[in-house]
Amino acid sequence: MTSGRHLELEATPQDAGPRVVIVGGGFGGLNAAKSLSELPVEITLIDKRNFHLFQPLLYQVATGGLSPADIAAPLRDVLRGKKNVTVLLDEVTFIDPRNRCVQLESSRIHYDFLIVATGAENHYFGNDPWSTHAPALKTIEDATNIRGRILSAFENAERELDPGVRKEWLRFAIVGGGPTGVELAGAIGEIANDTLRRKFRRILPGESEIFLFEGGPRVLPSMPPDLSEKAEKSLIRLGVRTLTGVTVTHIDDGSVTIQSADSTRKIAARTVVWAAGVRASSLGRQLAEAVSAQVDSSGRVRVSPDLSIPNHPEIFVIGDVSWCEQDGRRLPGTCPVAMQQGWHVSKVIKARLEGGKAPPFRYRDKGAMATIGRKKAVVDLGWIRFGGTFAWLTWLFVHLLYLVSYRSRVLVALQWAFQYFSFNRSARIITEKLR
Amino acid sequence: MTSGRHLELEATPQDAGPRVVIVGGGFGGLNAAKSLSELPVEITLIDKRNFHLFQPLLYQVATGGLSPADIAAPLRDVLRGKKNVTVLLDEVTFIDPRNRCVQLESSRIHYDFLIVATGAENHYFGNDPWSTHAPALKTIEDATNIRGRILSAFENAERELDPGVRKEWLRFAIVGGGPTGVELAGAIGEIANDTLRRKFRRILPGESEIFLFEGGPRVLPSMPPDLSEKAEKSLIRLGVRTLTGVTVTHIDDGSVTIQSADSTRKIAARTVVWAAGVRASSLGRQLAEAVSAQVDSSGRVRVSPDLSIPNHPEIFVIGDVSWCEQDGRRLPGTCPVAMQQGWHVSKVIKARLEGGKAPPFRYRDKGAMATIGRKKAVVDLGWIRFGGTFAWLTWLFVHLLYLVSYRSRVLVALQWAFQYFSFNRSARIITEKLR
Repeated sequence: MTSGRHLELEATPQDAGPRVVIVGGGFGGLNAAKSLSELPVEITLIDKRNFHLFQPLLYQVATGGLSPADIAAPLRDVLRGKKNVTVLLDEVTFIDPRNRCVQLESSRIHYDFLIVATGAENHYFGNDPWSTHAPALKTIEDATNIRGRILSAFENAERELDPGVRKEWLRFAIVGGGPTGVELAGAIGEIANDTLRRKFRRILPGESEIFLFEGGPRVLPSMPPDLSEKAEKSLIRLGVRTLTGVTVTHIDDGSVTIQSADSTRKIAARTVVWAAGVRASSLGRQLAEAVSAQVDSSGRVRVSPDLSIPNHPEIFVIGDVSWCEQDGRRLPGTCPVAMQQGWHVSKVIKARLEGGKAPPFRYRDKGAMATIGRKKAVVDLGWIRFGGTFAWLTWLFVHLLYLVSYRSRVLVALQWAFQYFSFNRSARIITEKLR
Repeated sequence: MTSGRHLELEATPQDAGPRVVIVGGGFGGLNAAKSLSELPVEITLIDKRNFHLFQPLLYQVATGGLSPADIAAPLRDVLRGKKNVTVLLDEVTFIDPRNRCVQLESSRIHYDFLIVATGAENHYFGNDPWSTHAPALKTIEDATNIRGRILSAFENAERELDPGVRKEWLRFAIVGGGPTGVELAGAIGEIANDTLRRKFRRILPGESEIFLFEGGPRVLPSMPPDLSEKAEKSLIRLGVRTLTGVTVTHIDDGSVTIQSADSTRKIAARTVVWAAGVRASSLGRQLAEAVSAQVDSSGRVRVSPDLSIPNHPEIFVIGDVSWCEQDGRRLPGTCPVAMQQGWHVSKVIKARLEGGKAPPFRYRDKGAMATIGRKKAVVDLGWIRFGGTFAWLTWLFVHLLYLVSYRSRVLVALQWAFQYFSFNRSARIITEKLR
């Protein structure tokens, strides 16, 4: 019996209500769990990590402004009061829609409703070897790794005798001019110009060169052109050189090759960060294959207006792993979309349990924002858009508001206050082995 | 020239004053650097990490109470105002006393005075394979690893179907009843009884068994017997079973074998932490060999009353790597000893530069303390000793006082306040791969 003893892990008895299994504790899954917990259902939330990660602030961990635990709330803490929610730290290896169960590492769980909210993963568009030289920012470990690389670059420059190599250590390249790329580039600019000022004896961190490469014609391509322009101006003031309309054709240990309309250029930079793209997690593709659902080029699974997949009204796909169309346009892979979809699924399930039908999902776009640095941000609320100090304060406020735990809010606010007044970032520690 | 270009890294010109090289940015080295920076000398502080670590609170990182960056201050921040101090992130591979230089990874540095303050490392007394199963607590990485193991144990128990295996996941063993062992055992007791209460659905974390093994006749053997007794009572109230007079004879993946005067017992515990001993860092032994200095069984280098080594008045050895006798007794490897020795070396160097002689080093013992948990601690100030809430408050106050940066003090105080009122520890995130 030893080998089989883990195989079947029977969930709570039937009389506890329909069994809802949620895979993924990100913005979509966590919000679904919270709102479903009010219904007479038995919920199991499965995640391979024991915390909910507030990804919008991950770049601040990567740049030494915050600690990992400041933006990571243990799932058991967030859901502690919900008696009908069981949290399992486990990985779903595949979904078996025919038998209505999910396979975990060493057990399987049956569901009456399944919510797939497994998010996205880094994507190098067929150039996986680049990941060694140009890490991307998706997990806590990615963030501490990138933090270590950025900080080590300055340390290596201080130790280096060859002026050419020293320059290469002080050259940083960010691939991708979306919000993550812009925020990272801005933060590195601040580190070089403010944080590390006067802290070295042989180098001037302010002489660092920071490149931001974007394939489109402007940074923040998803925002209105005037905000892109504002963001670009702020970046330039922080010493960031934005190169738009360029494609990265090669990355190796120490250089990035870029191609623009008329030329090819190799830039010798020892620190490169990839912020150019993600794709839906592989579980979505496995599910799509099993049920013959449509998948887009980013691996997202096409969903019906109620967020379930065709022919399987009991399976919902939400968040970054979901391909959801509204008024002929695909919804972007952002937190607000995932959160609203999480709430919506609980409405659909509630209606079904009561024998009714919920209205189709409609995303209410509340706007977008990105911060570039100290008192520099851009905010687009649809009916109004603005940049500068007020945009920055709005950004601060909204991000604090959406942080999951009260403790995090206070700790993050305090560290931002320290950072504002001292120009310092104190979580600047290099941990783990690099490269 | 390529292969040779790193070889010689010439320090600042001679007219900047005598060159003092400090190896290690712990309590000894950092305090030496701070007080020496007031003298007309040129200081180079070399550390293989980019931060000063406040080791007395490391167990709180290992038990999810604090984040690594809360107790790690970047060396460049601490020493930013000191114009005559250069910080280098590098590792000293050996000391060449004859040529008065230290060899780094890719360069060498000359010194007029050398201060060796490289501290201690984990020691398994010839049983190095045990380190795989029973990690010890010395670095930030050790702490996050142990944190991951403790938290994963509860997660694994929640997932486990076999009641026997589940019990093994809920059994914790700490080897070594000194301050670190006592503090760890107490914190695990609090996690099981308070922090995780009601956060699991299939296990009762409060049913965990926590063992503390000590070879001597009582826990905290360096403290007076009545305080050991108080500590033991507090531990028992937290559910910790202290077994004194026992020797660990074997550790493997899943069990610890202990031997007492009359019996041998194998305890099936899936989480084991080693807190039984350290030895001086290997650089001390290399130095001792090079200059034929005496070394004790823990690898510490015997120093003269002025903390220099015999025949080499220009080389000082301080902190955990130093074997220093006072009134016929060896000074312990504690922070206060290292700090006072750091200050003293700067006095000795000052006196030498002025053509005088400093009085011999005298350690002023200000007492010892250990905390067991919420409102539970023991304090021994020599002239008075006490336990309970007041001891706990004293412990809190002293530790906050000695934290290096102002920012850390506020953040740590705040997190302790949260922890006190909510019974929660929020930095409970599992990071990196385990085992």
